[in-house]
Amino acid sequence: MPQPRVSFITLGVADLDRARRFYEAWGWEPAEASQDVVFFQANGMVISLFGLAALADDQGRPGASLGTGAMTLAQNYLTEAQVDEVYAAALAAGATSLKAPEKVFWGGYSGYVADPDGHVWELAMNPFSPPGPDGSVVLPGADAEG
Amino acid sequence: MPQPRVSFITLGVADLDRARRFYEAWGWEPAEASQDVVFFQANGMVISLFGLAALADDQGRPGASLGTGAMTLAQNYLTEAQVDEVYAAALAAGATSLKAPEKVFWGGYSGYVADPDGHVWELAMNPFSPPGPDGSVVLPGADAEG
Repeated sequence: MPQPRVSFITLGVADLDRARRFYEAWGWEPAEASQDVVFFQANGMVISLFGLAALADDQGRPGASLGTGAMTLAQNYLTEAQVDEVYAAALAAGATSLKAPEKVFWGGYSGYVADPDGHVWELAMNPFSPPGPDGSVVLPGADAEG
Repeated sequence: MPQPRVSFITLGVADLDRARRFYEAWGWEPAEASQDVVFFQANGMVISLFGLAALADDQGRPGASLGTGAMTLAQNYLTEAQVDEVYAAALAAGATSLKAPEKVFWGGYSGYVADPDGHVWELAMNPFSPPGPDGSVVLPGADAEG
């Protein structure tokens, strides 16, 4: 099994503009942003802002009221086979499947599980954000020096 | 302002033994553990398991019912002055203070804020887990090769 890792932290937000203004006011500069999502480069990983409804959809539970603390912790891998391996190991360990790994519209492969306390992990092969040797993710738009 | 970073992710859990068994069964090996907390080394950061009640206490809201998704995202800095700077910038940006930075029993200096959606950030100077140049944290007990 690969080492524990977190590649993206996605914060579900009620108002993306408000959230982006907050983090920009706090001194964070987006590395990438659109009307739907904002990405910040962090230490070998990425922090995302994403609408609560969109996050619920992405987690495989459309219409769910995620509330405060709604969040996805994503683990990115190089291959679909690695995603499948880690997903199967999660279920074997007692995780609840929210969405079996499948090819997704943005060009990757992704599944979701919840741990026994309901913490949500996304397991993904994302050709646009492959992990480096230590599991770290670096966005194309990020300052290479951090 | 320093780059965005996440140094620790603390998952609030209802039953620490159950949570530890789950993550160990998933293939994670604790780098450090006690009866109260379990630490896993991840990519330049640390994932912790911590009791829900203890997490509520640590976040400055004893007795709070954190529920599913309860989580702290911690940013570690080298000095108390850096913690104060980032804390002040958070409040100036519209964060809610949960606990002003103060010296804490474990030998560090720590404060808590909540972002507009209630996501909780700890800002800490932790002499036992100082960040490296890119903000990454490496536990003494972790395999140096990851």
